[in-house]
Order: sequence, then structure tokens, then C-alpha cells
Amino acid sequence: MSATAKKINLGEAFAALEDYWSPRIAGDVNDAQVKIAKIKGEFDWHAHEAEDEAFLVVKGAMRLEFRDHAIEMTEGDFLVVPRGVEHRPVAAEECWILMVEPSTTVNTGAARTARTKLALERL
Amino acid sequence: MSATAKKINLGEAFAALEDYWSPRIAGDVNDAQVKIAKIKGEFDWHAHEAEDEAFLVVKGAMRLEFRDHAIEMTEGDFLVVPRGVEHRPVAAEECWILMVEPSTTVNTGAARTARTKLALERL
Repeated sequence: MSATAKKINLGEAFAALEDYWSPRIAGDVNDAQVKIAKIKGEFDWHAHEAEDEAFLVVKGAMRLEFRDHAIEMTEGDFLVVPRGVEHRPVAAEECWILMVEPSTTVNTGAARTARTKLALERL
Repeated sequence: MSATAKKINLGEAFAALEDYWSPRIAGDVNDAQVKIAKIKGEFDWHAHEAEDEAFLVVKGAMRLEFRDHAIEMTEGDFLVVPRGVEHRPVAAEECWILMVEPSTTVNTGAARTARTKLALERL
């Protein structure tokens, strides 16, 4: 970690994101990272074997689908998907989400798909 | 971690907080925690020896004071205070903040003050 704290306005950072399903790293917190992403459409089913994953809807709405149920999430809704639980985010319209997860987390978990992002850019 | 994901609306959770400077745990993400707090006034100077601490202003405005400078933060502003860096949050008016930090983090760091909270409640 740099000893210099850098302020980022997430609203501006979200607005500047060009691609869906392409998270950016806002900051490192020890072994965890805070990420932001714009999403729209259906993501790929996946699970993170050893990593919990927190979602916060910052703008818009999304649905977190699990194999046996789904949870509708709107602005301000926060939820942690426990490690090992298969899930996929789905958003009918553009949605802005903040995620907190271990820095080892790959967006598609153990799955490798066309949407897998192995090296994320920082804001 | 429970295998059941629990949705929390942070707007409602913030509104229900009764005390300033009394963080609540929104969720665990491996060794990290996401916390929310209402703040107003000047907090105590402190540093977290081994723990980075992320701040996100959800509503209102605050100032993060460091020994040699200060950073004004308004809604949507995000900043990670690196471990070891002395800081104190100051808010002229009520401000809602989200924090991400290791679960070992104590709100007043290595300092023990009247505001030290050693056992935080969960939302």
C-alpha cells in the first residue's frame, strides 16, 4: 500500500466505465479489494470456492440468482454471497454495483468463460 | 459463514442507527468486514497498525484529517487509509459512512478512548 491516500469519487468512476461486466479496483484493504462494475444482462453461473463476495447496488436494480431461488436487489441493497454458493447476477437494465471480495477472487470464480477477467485495472 | 445470503438495505439500516460513532457489521467477506456508521463531530486520533481502512461517504460530508493534511469527502467519495497512518474523521453535520476493513480492526485503532468499541453488533 502507498502511504498516500487517494480519493476517488465512485459516481464519476461508474459514469466513466465503458464496458459491462468489467470490474475495476477502487482500493485494496489488506487481502480484500473493493471493486466497482457496471452490469447489464445475464452473467455466467459460477461459484467462488474459497471466497465470500459482497454486493452493494449503488444505482439501478439487479437480481442475484441462486440455483434454488433468486433475490431482487435495488439501490442500497447489500448481500454477501458465501463461498461455494453458485450464483449469477442478472440486470434487465444498466446497474452499478460495488463489490468487496478477497483480492484473489476471479469474476467468474472457478469457471472460465468469455467474460473471465484475470487482470483488473485500477481506478 | 452461513450458506444463506441475507439481503440488507443499507439506507434503512443507516436510518435506524441511533448512536454516532457506533459501527455495525453489515457482512463478513473472508477476513474483511463491511461496516456502516453514522458520524457527527470529531473522532479521536488513531492509527491501525496493520490494517488498511476504506471509507465511502454514503450521505453527507466528512473530512478525513491526517497529521499533515486533510481530505474533504462528499457523497460517493471513496478513500483507503493505509495501515499505520494516523487519521481522524470529522463531520460538521451527520454523515453516513461505509467502511471496509479487516475483522480485527478496532474503531480507535491502537488507541483506547471513550469511543472504543470492542464488540460490534451485526445488522
